[in-house]
Amino acid sequence: MKPRQVAAFSGDSKTIRVVGHRGARGILPENSIVGFDFALSIGVELLEFDVLLTADDVPVITHNHEFHGSGVRGPDGAFLNGERPRVSSLRMEEVVRFDIGRLDGTTDYGRRFPDQAQMDGVRVPRLSELLRLVSQPKYEHACLMLELKSDPDFAQDSAVRERIVSVICRDVCEAKLADRTLLHSFDWALLAECRRQAPDMPVSFLTQLQESEDDVGEDSAILVTPDLDRPDISVPDEVSRAGGSLWCPYFSELTADDLARARELGLCVAVWTVNEPEDIDAMIDLGVDAIVTDYPGRVQRRLSDRGYRWTR
Amino acid sequence: MKPRQVAAFSGDSKTIRVVGHRGARGILPENSIVGFDFALSIGVELLEFDVLLTADDVPVITHNHEFHGSGVRGPDGAFLNGERPRVSSLRMEEVVRFDIGRLDGTTDYGRRFPDQAQMDGVRVPRLSELLRLVSQPKYEHACLMLELKSDPDFAQDSAVRERIVSVICRDVCEAKLADRTLLHSFDWALLAECRRQAPDMPVSFLTQLQESEDDVGEDSAILVTPDLDRPDISVPDEVSRAGGSLWCPYFSELTADDLARARELGLCVAVWTVNEPEDIDAMIDLGVDAIVTDYPGRVQRRLSDRGYRWTR
Repeated sequence: MKPRQVAAFSGDSKTIRVVGHRGARGILPENSIVGFDFALSIGVELLEFDVLLTADDVPVITHNHEFHGSGVRGPDGAFLNGERPRVSSLRMEEVVRFDIGRLDGTTDYGRRFPDQAQMDGVRVPRLSELLRLVSQPKYEHACLMLELKSDPDFAQDSAVRERIVSVICRDVCEAKLADRTLLHSFDWALLAECRRQAPDMPVSFLTQLQESEDDVGEDSAILVTPDLDRPDISVPDEVSRAGGSLWCPYFSELTADDLARARELGLCVAVWTVNEPEDIDAMIDLGVDAIVTDYPGRVQRRLSDRGYRWTR
Repeated sequence: MKPRQVAAFSGDSKTIRVVGHRGARGILPENSIVGFDFALSIGVELLEFDVLLTADDVPVITHNHEFHGSGVRGPDGAFLNGERPRVSSLRMEEVVRFDIGRLDGTTDYGRRFPDQAQMDGVRVPRLSELLRLVSQPKYEHACLMLELKSDPDFAQDSAVRERIVSVICRDVCEAKLADRTLLHSFDWALLAECRRQAPDMPVSFLTQLQESEDDVGEDSAILVTPDLDRPDISVPDEVSRAGGSLWCPYFSELTADDLARARELGLCVAVWTVNEPEDIDAMIDLGVDAIVTDYPGRVQRRLSDRGYRWTR
């Protein structure tokens, strides 16, 4: 029997899951409580988000190791200009002084999300705030795809890895959400540490073989993985060998053969980040288990029109 | 001094208001509580919506006199097929059996909103439910653009008009929201009745001189107005003479001259329904007071990028 959270991400012939990427980045500020609440309120039960540690070891939900001016304003209300404060150098009381409610439309990153609501007073949430949100009875079916980001300055430091995993897993376990959370990362060393510290929590392996337009305006992805580019390698076999329950390839890199092989290996396959209608349709045609998207309403529409469910 | 709700719809050199059309029709089911709550939660304080009466005289929020299969499912969960139940023939207990949470993508109307979230168990709300929502302290700045729809079968029946206005105004007054509500209509006879019964509530005159793509898949607009197509007529003068506080033209029909004339007459000018980025920009350039839109986040983005506010 599949663990509860793996079952929640698994599709079938009439079911494809919808995963809200950073909440619903196309519609609301990314990695914000208001965005997570929106996704849950429209019946998208699966949330993807990114967790980093502050200087005082508080797990917070934010994507980049440094705050960028494209989507972060300082206490003066202006987008950060040049300055790039590092999350790991800020204490929690400093982190909450920044406002993540708007995008700067003069930046490449800002231009990627022309429909995102613009708000004031939106703060980087603690992981514990999201855990509290999904602990409400109305969201009892919600499951979490919790991405652990490796710190590029300490990628080879096993003590840092141990601390990241232990602090984050403690929060999840204290909230009694271990059976509703997947540990998700590009960093295979971090995921190995997750397997060691929390063997009961399924892990999910993100892969991206080449840079894509999804990277525009973002921190570069930290690919601490085996050399997946080798022509003779089977990525799903590697994921399976590493103890993965989920495989999460960049959508345009998934082939029908690799999907079939992943299924043979018992892996659940979720693709990221699928936003364009034609790409959504292609992933439905391919028959993936789950679609990670910035536009969960749009994916619901494609699925609904084609007679698919996203919940059971 | 302007009445409170007229001030809330009025812009200035650095402020253009955002009005959520039927809540946020581009993102969530139209005229639903979840859609209204979304718009309010992103800081869009002005809501446009449509009110009809059921057979048992309950004011409900829905646009069309007949439920269409494009966006309404019956108790069996299937989109209405051919059948077009009339709201004025249904009792409230029957109205709530229909589900307005999804769009049928095989219809012209359904195709117009490809990003709308697809939900189950969403009901046509009573007017009183929305009034309760905006009565919460967190939404104390919210104001309402309440559209009264004339029943085409009874457009000339003054007793019907009196009843529509009296039942709706009673709900608004009981909720103590008369100073936060504009009465809004295409039907000048209905608005005259509003002036008679509720002289303290400002009225807003909708105009549309020609059919537009905004009408695709909708009930035809009921234009019970003076003959505004006459070349020598000034629409803002007619609105002012009829006692209007707001004029709400179809956006592409508004000229700079008419806007200037409306300002001379002390009218507030809100344009409907503006969804495309280039149209939003054109309305910002023209300097309207308020933009009615299905995509409030998108309008916020255009305004934010150009240094405008939407609240004071």
